[in-house]
Amino acid sequence: MSTSMYQASVPVFRQMLLALSDVLGKAEAHAAARNVEPAVLLQSRLALDMFPLVRQVQIACDFANSVTARLAEIEVTAYDDTEQNIAQLRARIANIVASLDRMTEAQFAGSESLEVVLRPGTPKEKKLLGRTYLLNYGLPQFFFHVTTAYNVLRHNGVEIGKKDYMGSY
Amino acid sequence: MSTSMYQASVPVFRQMLLALSDVLGKAEAHAAARNVEPAVLLQSRLALDMFPLVRQVQIACDFANSVTARLAEIEVTAYDDTEQNIAQLRARIANIVASLDRMTEAQFAGSESLEVVLRPGTPKEKKLLGRTYLLNYGLPQFFFHVTTAYNVLRHNGVEIGKKDYMGSY
Repeated sequence: MSTSMYQASVPVFRQMLLALSDVLGKAEAHAAARNVEPAVLLQSRLALDMFPLVRQVQIACDFANSVTARLAEIEVTAYDDTEQNIAQLRARIANIVASLDRMTEAQFAGSESLEVVLRPGTPKEKKLLGRTYLLNYGLPQFFFHVTTAYNVLRHNGVEIGKKDYMGSY
Repeated sequence: MSTSMYQASVPVFRQMLLALSDVLGKAEAHAAARNVEPAVLLQSRLALDMFPLVRQVQIACDFANSVTARLAEIEVTAYDDTEQNIAQLRARIANIVASLDRMTEAQFAGSESLEVVLRPGTPKEKKLLGRTYLLNYGLPQFFFHVTTAYNVLRHNGVEIGKKDYMGSY
């Protein structure tokens, strides 16, 4: 063995989601100290046609959730995207982390050669091996949304640094 | 084997660096079409106390370069950080990609249990196993800087999308 599919996914998603939750806690305090409605922060974005903070966090959660569930061949839990404030976003993250904590190495055995179909039944359908799905698709997507959430907050003056982004490793 | 340290590093860095180079090409055209000096784009940033675009790209290159070299136990090539324009940044990326292309699976054998020391001899010294160094430190750092470079450009109106960030997988 070199490194397992479990090691390359579950602890990585867990580390970054816990860090993101702490970052959101700092953002909430930042907005509260300035008497800013939480909705302002949740709707902040870096460009007019980029998703706002709330969607960046929801999508980061969805990638952690769906990539691990598909590799472990368990049902993907669906979320409604109804979060209205930071506390609700942090609760969603806590839920995903709890589901990651229930996953085991054994569930990921052989997942490197599992066939994963992206956008099935559409013209953009794409078949990937589990390994490519995780390393070349799932992780890049996940890190994109975690980093963009962080960048939206930095751009709005929240006092966070790289250490907050990285979390505990 | 589940997935190799080589697979979890070299092709991932390669994919993202090639995509970043293309994104920078679009940024160069965007600035040129508006008669903007390249230095303006290179010094653009998302917050006063964040690194500008040029440093984001340099640091992304450094992580791809140093993480793979340390895992493969070869010398880390040093760069001078003297890039003054997009073409020079793209040349640096091409150099790193060429060095990734010379690496082999065999060089990474056993690197998951290699001891890697971060910030040696400083109060912040930290010892990590090669696997943790790659998955929980190197990749999160690398993706942070690639995504932030992309976000700086999006924020400045460069017409790029998620597909440009992802590259070919």
